[in-house]
Amino acid sequence: MSETSTTPSYPSVSDLTLEEKASLTSGGDAWHLQGVEHKGIPGYMITDGPHGLRKSLASNTSETDLNDSVPATCFPPAAGLSSSWNPALIREVGEAMGEECVQEKVAVILGPGVNIKRNPLGGRCFEYWSEDPYLAGHEAVGIVEGVQSKGVGTSLKHFAANNQETDRLRVDARISQRALREIYLPAFEHIVKTAQPWTIMCSYNKINGVHSAQNHWLLTDVLRGEWGFKGIVMSDWGADHDRVASLNAGLNLEMPPSYTDEQIVYAARDGRIDPAQLDRMAQGMIDLTNKARAAMSVENYRFDVEAHDEVAHQAAVESMVLLKNEHAILPLAPAADGRADGAAAIAVIGEFARTPRYQGGGSSHITPTKMTSFLDTLAARGIKADFAPGFTLDLAPADPALETEAVEAARRAETVLMFLGLPEEAESEGFDRENIDMPAKQIELLRQVAAVNPNVVVVLSNGSVVSVAPWAKYAKGILEAWLLGQAGGPALADVIFGKVSPSGKLAQSIPMDINDDPSMLNWPGEEGHVDYGEGVFVGYRYYDTYGKAVDYPFGYGLSYATFEIGGVAVAKTGANTASVTATVTNTSDVPAAETVQVYVAPGKSDVARPVHELKGFEKVFLGAGESKTVTIELDERAFAYWSEKYGDWHVETGEYTVEVGTSSRDIAATATVALEGDGKSMPLTEWSSFGEWSADPVGAKVVEAVDAAGERGELPKLPDNAMMRLFLNSMPINSLPTLLGAAGKDLTAFMLEEYAKLTK
Amino acid sequence: MSETSTTPSYPSVSDLTLEEKASLTSGGDAWHLQGVEHKGIPGYMITDGPHGLRKSLASNTSETDLNDSVPATCFPPAAGLSSSWNPALIREVGEAMGEECVQEKVAVILGPGVNIKRNPLGGRCFEYWSEDPYLAGHEAVGIVEGVQSKGVGTSLKHFAANNQETDRLRVDARISQRALREIYLPAFEHIVKTAQPWTIMCSYNKINGVHSAQNHWLLTDVLRGEWGFKGIVMSDWGADHDRVASLNAGLNLEMPPSYTDEQIVYAARDGRIDPAQLDRMAQGMIDLTNKARAAMSVENYRFDVEAHDEVAHQAAVESMVLLKNEHAILPLAPAADGRADGAAAIAVIGEFARTPRYQGGGSSHITPTKMTSFLDTLAARGIKADFAPGFTLDLAPADPALETEAVEAARRAETVLMFLGLPEEAESEGFDRENIDMPAKQIELLRQVAAVNPNVVVVLSNGSVVSVAPWAKYAKGILEAWLLGQAGGPALADVIFGKVSPSGKLAQSIPMDINDDPSMLNWPGEEGHVDYGEGVFVGYRYYDTYGKAVDYPFGYGLSYATFEIGGVAVAKTGANTASVTATVTNTSDVPAAETVQVYVAPGKSDVARPVHELKGFEKVFLGAGESKTVTIELDERAFAYWSEKYGDWHVETGEYTVEVGTSSRDIAATATVALEGDGKSMPLTEWSSFGEWSADPVGAKVVEAVDAAGERGELPKLPDNAMMRLFLNSMPINSLPTLLGAAGKDLTAFMLEEYAKLTK
Repeated sequence: MSETSTTPSYPSVSDLTLEEKASLTSGGDAWHLQGVEHKGIPGYMITDGPHGLRKSLASNTSETDLNDSVPATCFPPAAGLSSSWNPALIREVGEAMGEECVQEKVAVILGPGVNIKRNPLGGRCFEYWSEDPYLAGHEAVGIVEGVQSKGVGTSLKHFAANNQETDRLRVDARISQRALREIYLPAFEHIVKTAQPWTIMCSYNKINGVHSAQNHWLLTDVLRGEWGFKGIVMSDWGADHDRVASLNAGLNLEMPPSYTDEQIVYAARDGRIDPAQLDRMAQGMIDLTNKARAAMSVENYRFDVEAHDEVAHQAAVESMVLLKNEHAILPLAPAADGRADGAAAIAVIGEFARTPRYQGGGSSHITPTKMTSFLDTLAARGIKADFAPGFTLDLAPADPALETEAVEAARRAETVLMFLGLPEEAESEGFDRENIDMPAKQIELLRQVAAVNPNVVVVLSNGSVVSVAPWAKYAKGILEAWLLGQAGGPALADVIFGKVSPSGKLAQSIPMDINDDPSMLNWPGEEGHVDYGEGVFVGYRYYDTYGKAVDYPFGYGLSYATFEIGGVAVAKTGANTASVTATVTNTSDVPAAETVQVYVAPGKSDVARPVHELKGFEKVFLGAGESKTVTIELDERAFAYWSEKYGDWHVETGEYTVEVGTSSRDIAATATVALEGDGKSMPLTEWSSFGEWSADPVGAKVVEAVDAAGERGELPKLPDNAMMRLFLNSMPINSLPTLLGAAGKDLTAFMLEEYAKLTK
Repeated sequence: MSETSTTPSYPSVSDLTLEEKASLTSGGDAWHLQGVEHKGIPGYMITDGPHGLRKSLASNTSETDLNDSVPATCFPPAAGLSSSWNPALIREVGEAMGEECVQEKVAVILGPGVNIKRNPLGGRCFEYWSEDPYLAGHEAVGIVEGVQSKGVGTSLKHFAANNQETDRLRVDARISQRALREIYLPAFEHIVKTAQPWTIMCSYNKINGVHSAQNHWLLTDVLRGEWGFKGIVMSDWGADHDRVASLNAGLNLEMPPSYTDEQIVYAARDGRIDPAQLDRMAQGMIDLTNKARAAMSVENYRFDVEAHDEVAHQAAVESMVLLKNEHAILPLAPAADGRADGAAAIAVIGEFARTPRYQGGGSSHITPTKMTSFLDTLAARGIKADFAPGFTLDLAPADPALETEAVEAARRAETVLMFLGLPEEAESEGFDRENIDMPAKQIELLRQVAAVNPNVVVVLSNGSVVSVAPWAKYAKGILEAWLLGQAGGPALADVIFGKVSPSGKLAQSIPMDINDDPSMLNWPGEEGHVDYGEGVFVGYRYYDTYGKAVDYPFGYGLSYATFEIGGVAVAKTGANTASVTATVTNTSDVPAAETVQVYVAPGKSDVARPVHELKGFEKVFLGAGESKTVTIELDERAFAYWSEKYGDWHVETGEYTVEVGTSSRDIAATATVALEGDGKSMPLTEWSSFGEWSADPVGAKVVEAVDAAGERGELPKLPDNAMMRLFLNSMPINSLPTLLGAAGKDLTAFMLEEYAKLTK
C-alpha cells in the first residue's frame, strides 16, 4: 500500500521494534514528527499553512499564541486567490511557499484546505476555495504541485466535510452519499489523483456517525482504494480520539501527540491491530521522511523575499473582483497634484486603507515579511489623496468625530475611495458568523458620504461573502478585494489606477439575503449533528436550478476591457467525452484577462440534477483587440452523477448541453452533444415496478408474454382502466395479488421465470 | 396488549387453532375481514373513505374500477373540510358517515388520512388535512369520534410519512427523528391518544429503510408502547411484503390477502413468530369484530339522505376560503331580474359551474346520493344569470368558440362569476403534480374577460393548492372553494349571495412560487429514496421563520364581517403549562365566524425552532356586534421540541411568546410566559466541551478547581489568549492534550474525578 522511495535512506519498518513502529504513528510534539532518532529516522518539522508559512516560535510542547511565528510571505488567503481562476499563478504561490519551507526546514506545510463553502457563514470560508468542487480542486491543486515541486510536502485538508466551526470537534455531518461524492469529495479526489499530496489531514467532525479519523470507508476504501492515494493521513490537531480505531481505519499519524503510543503496542500485541496494518501505517511515515530528506538536507538556503513579495503582489492583483463600475468610474486617473483649491482629487476613507486586513484569524495567521498599505503605496507612488479613517476596525459604535472628518473629506474630493470591510473579530477560525451583513456603522458612513459626493468607489476587505445589495446604491464602483495578503496595497493601486485590469471572478455566489441559502434550514445543526438537507444543491447549483435571484452570480467579475466569445463548438471525443472550443476576443483597447467557463447542463435525468455545473475553465490573457481559441476537454465525469443505486458514477444516455460563458448566469453560447451513456442498468426483480418492467427492453417482452397468456386465459388479464393501470405501473410485481387476487402470485412467478429464461 | 371487549361474544384466540389464528391476520378478500366462520367469527366488510363511503360494487376478489360503488353522501374532501377549522362540524360529518356504514354493513371505513402536506405537489393533498400537524390532528379527530360514535370503526391512515405518490410503494422516506416527532407523527398521536381509532392503516413507504408494515419501532414501540394504541393495524392495500416480519413488527392484518396464511403457520411452528405475538395480533382482530358486532347486527337501517346532504351542505359552506374581496365585490345581490337591456346582471363563466369537480380521484372516489351544481342552484333559487362554459374540463387546448362566447357574456354582464379550477386529470391519487399552475387556457380566458369587465370574481375548484399570484390582478374577488362534495352548488350560492359569510381559513400556505417551498430540493426523491432535508421547516414553519413572502399565509381567510381581538392574556397553570384568553368581537352588522389562532413562539433555544407554531384554535360564531371570550389551554407539549439528544420531548427553561391572531401573519396581540422547563440535563462526560463544563453549575465548580490547581502549579495553566480560549471552549475535554501537551491528560482526569466527587 505504501510507496517505496526510489532511494531508500532510512530503515524500513522491518528494522524497527513494535514500540518504534508505534512511536512513528504520533507526533514528537505539536509541530514535529516523532522519528526514531537512534535508528537515524529524524523527526522533521511540519507547520501550518495554507497561504504562507506559520512556523511557531512557541515551545515545542504547547502553544498559547497562534500569532507568534517567524516571518514568512503572506500570500492572499484562498478567499482571494480562488477568485483568480488561475492555476498557474496558484502554482507559483505554492512554489514560493515550498522555498520558504526549505529555508525553515519544514517538511510539510499544512494545506491547502479544499472544503466546500457550504454556507457563507462558515468561519473558515476565508481559508477555503469555493462553493464549487471543480473550481476548488482545479485551483488548489496548484498549491500542492507548487510546494511539492520543491521537495516539501503538503497536507490536503480537512478530509472531509468540515464545513462549519460550530461544534466542529464533535458534530456529525449527516450527508447523503450523492452529496458527498458530487460536492464534498471531488476537490480532494481531483488533487489526490493528479498531484498525490504527500499527506492528507482528516477533519475533526464525524460523517454519518463516524469521526473522520476513525472512518475506514473514508481513509482506506475511498482515499486509498478508489483514488489510489500513496501518502499518509494525519489527524487534525486533536481529531484523533481513539488511536487503535484510527490506526485500523487508515490514520498514519496522530497530531499533536497524546502520548499514548503504548495503546498501539498493547493493541498490536492483543490482536486489536493487525500487524500488517501497523506496518503499513508506520512505513508510510518513513516514506514521508524519505521524501522530505533531500529538501531538509539543504543548508543555509535563503528564499528571495522580494521575489516572493512580487508573487504575492501578482496573486493579489488577480484576487480582486470588480462587482460594479457604473459610468466606468474605475480606473481613476492617478493624480500627483491636487485640485485648484488645494484639496486632493481623491479622498481615501476607511481605516482599512491604512491598516489593511489582509488575512484571517486562527491557525493560518502569518507574520508577513513586509506590509505595504494602500496609503503607503499612494505615498510611494506620489499619488495625492486626503485620508480619513472614518471608523475603527471593530464592532464598537460609530465615532461621530471620525464620521464628520470623513464626510468633510468626501465633500472636498472629486472621487471617494471607501475602504470598508469586516474587522478581524467578525470572522475567524473557531466560530461561524451569524450574518453576512457589513458593520452598520460603515454602511451609515457610506450613506453620509454618498450624500455629499456621488462618485464613490467601495473597496471591500472581507474573508467571506458580505451582502452588497443593501448599500450598493451608494456606490458607483464596488471592488471586492477579499483578503489580499501582504502585497495588497500595491495590488489595489495597480487595479484602481488602471495599471492592470481587474480579472477576478467570484468563486462563490453573493446572495441577496443569507436566508436564500438552502443550507440555512440546517445551519449549523444542533444536538451534535447537522443534516446536509440541501443535498447537491449548494451555491449556484441551488440558485440557478430553482431560478432564485442572487446579487452577483458564481463566476462573475467585471473588467476594464470588453470581450466577445464566439465559435463555440463541441465535438465528441468518445462515447461519453467531448471537447469544447471557443474563441475569446478582447474587443477593447486595454490588455486584460477573461475567464472562459464551461458548464454542462444535463437533459432529462432519472435524478434531480443541478441545471448546470462547472466542468471546465480557462483564464485567457489578451492584449487589446487580441483573440485566442481555447480548447477544454470534458471527460466522462463531466457528465456523470453519483448514483446511490449503482454505488458508482453514472452517465445516462442522452443529449447534454454545453454552455460557454463568463459567469453561471452569463452564458455566451451553447452547444449540444449526444452521449451513448455508460450502459449501466439494474436487473429486473420482484421489486421492480410493473412500469419498470414495461420500460425495460427484456421486461417488455415478458409483459408481452403476460398479455398473450391473458388472452389465452392462462393468466389473469391486466386491468385496462386508466386509474388501475396507473396503480399497476407503480407496483413492484411482488404486489400483483393486491390488484389481481390469488392469481397475481402466478403472474409474478410467470414474469420472473420468463425473465430468467430471456436473460440466462 | 389487546383490549378485551366487555361483553365478549366471539371466541378468543385460546379457542382457535394455529391455522385459524393465522387466518385472522389477513383479509378474506379485498374488502372483507376473513373471520373464522365455522367458529362464529364473521368476516365483516371494510371499505374506503375517507370523505364518504366507497363500497365497491365489484366482485370480492378483485376490482377494476374504483368509481363503481353504491351511492353515499359525498362530503367535502379534507382539502375543503380542513379549511373549516371546525372540529364539531367535522364530527357531524363523521357521525353521518358512521350511519351510512351501519346501513351498508360496513364495519370499518378507511380514513381519515392525516398525512402532512409536505409539498403542495403531493398527489393526495386533497385527501389530507394540513401542512400543520396540530391542525390536522385536531380536525380529523372529529371524523374518528363521529364515525365511532355510531359503533363503526375508522382506519387512521397512512401511518406514516406517506407524503407523495411517486414510487409510493417502495420509496424510503429518510427523515430525522425530530421531524418525524414534530411534523409527521403528531396528528396520528393526538388522534390515537384522544379517540382510539379502532384501526390504523400503515403506509406503503419505508421510513429510514424499513417498510411501515415491518416497522416494529413504528407499529409497536411508538404506536402501542408510547401512545397506548388499543386497536389493530392493517396494511395499506399491498403494503405488506413479508407476512412474518410484519406480524412480528405489530401488523395485525394484511390487506388485501395474498393467500399466504400458511407462511404464518410455518413461522409460528419453527419459532420465527413468537406464539404470544401471533395471539396478540389475532386477538386484536377478534376484538375488532366484537366492537363492530352491535352496529353490524342492525337490520334494515336507512340513513336520512336529506339530512346527510344538509351536513354536506354546511360542511361545504365552511370549507370555502375568501382570499380576496376588493371593494367588497362579494356578496353579490341575488338578482331575480335581469338588466334593463334584457341581459342578466351576472355572467357565470366556466364549465365547473355546470359540471362541478367536487372530489378527487382514486380510492376515495364516491358515487354521491345527489348532486346539485351551482347552475342548478341558481335555477332552483330563481337567480338569473347568463352562462358560458368558456373551456372544457381537461388540459386540451383552448376552444376559441367557447372563449368568444364567454367574453361576450362577460361584456354584457355587470358582474362575472368565473368558475376556474383543476380538471380531474390534473390531480389524483397515484401521481404527484408537476406544478401548481392553473391551466393556461383558463388564465388566458380570465385575462380576456377582465379586459371587458372589471368586476370579476373567481371561484376556484381544486384539491391542492394552485398559484394565485400570476392572475390575481384580473379578479376583484377570489373564493377558494377547493372540492366541496355533493352540496357544493347550494353552499356556493349561500356564500356568493351573502346568505352566509365565508369563514374558511387556509390549512396550508399558498406560496408565490412552488420553488419557494424548501421541500422542492428533495422532491419527489430519486433512486428509491427521498430525503426530508427541510426537517421541521414545513409550510409556514419555513416561510415565517425565514421571512419569505407567501401569497396567502397559513390560517388566512376573509369574512364579510370585521372582527377585533382584544383582552389577550396568558396565565401559567403549571410549571410548563398556560391558559390563554382572548375576546373576539364582530364589529360588523352581519353574523359571521372568526377563528382565533394561538401560536407559540419560543425564545432562545439550543435548537433551531420555527419562529412560531400553531398550538390552539377556536372558531367563534358571532352575531352582529357580538363578543365572546375564548380560553385555550396550552399543555406542556405546546412548548416542547423533540430532542434527539434526550430521545424525548424537551421544554427549555425561559420565556415564550404566545401570539393570538387570525392567520400566521396576522397576529393581533402577544403575551409572554416564563416557564420553568422540564429540568432535563445531560451529565458531563469526557465528550462534553470545556465550554459546556464552564456553563454547567457543577462543571463550573470543577473549572474553578482547575484554575486554582493551575495557580498552585499542580496542573497546567489554561491559555488566556482569546483565540486559544475559543478553541479550548469548543474542545471535548478528552482533547485537552491538544492544547496542553501530556499534562492535558492529567487535567482531563482531574476534571472527571472532581465531577464524580461533586455528583456522587
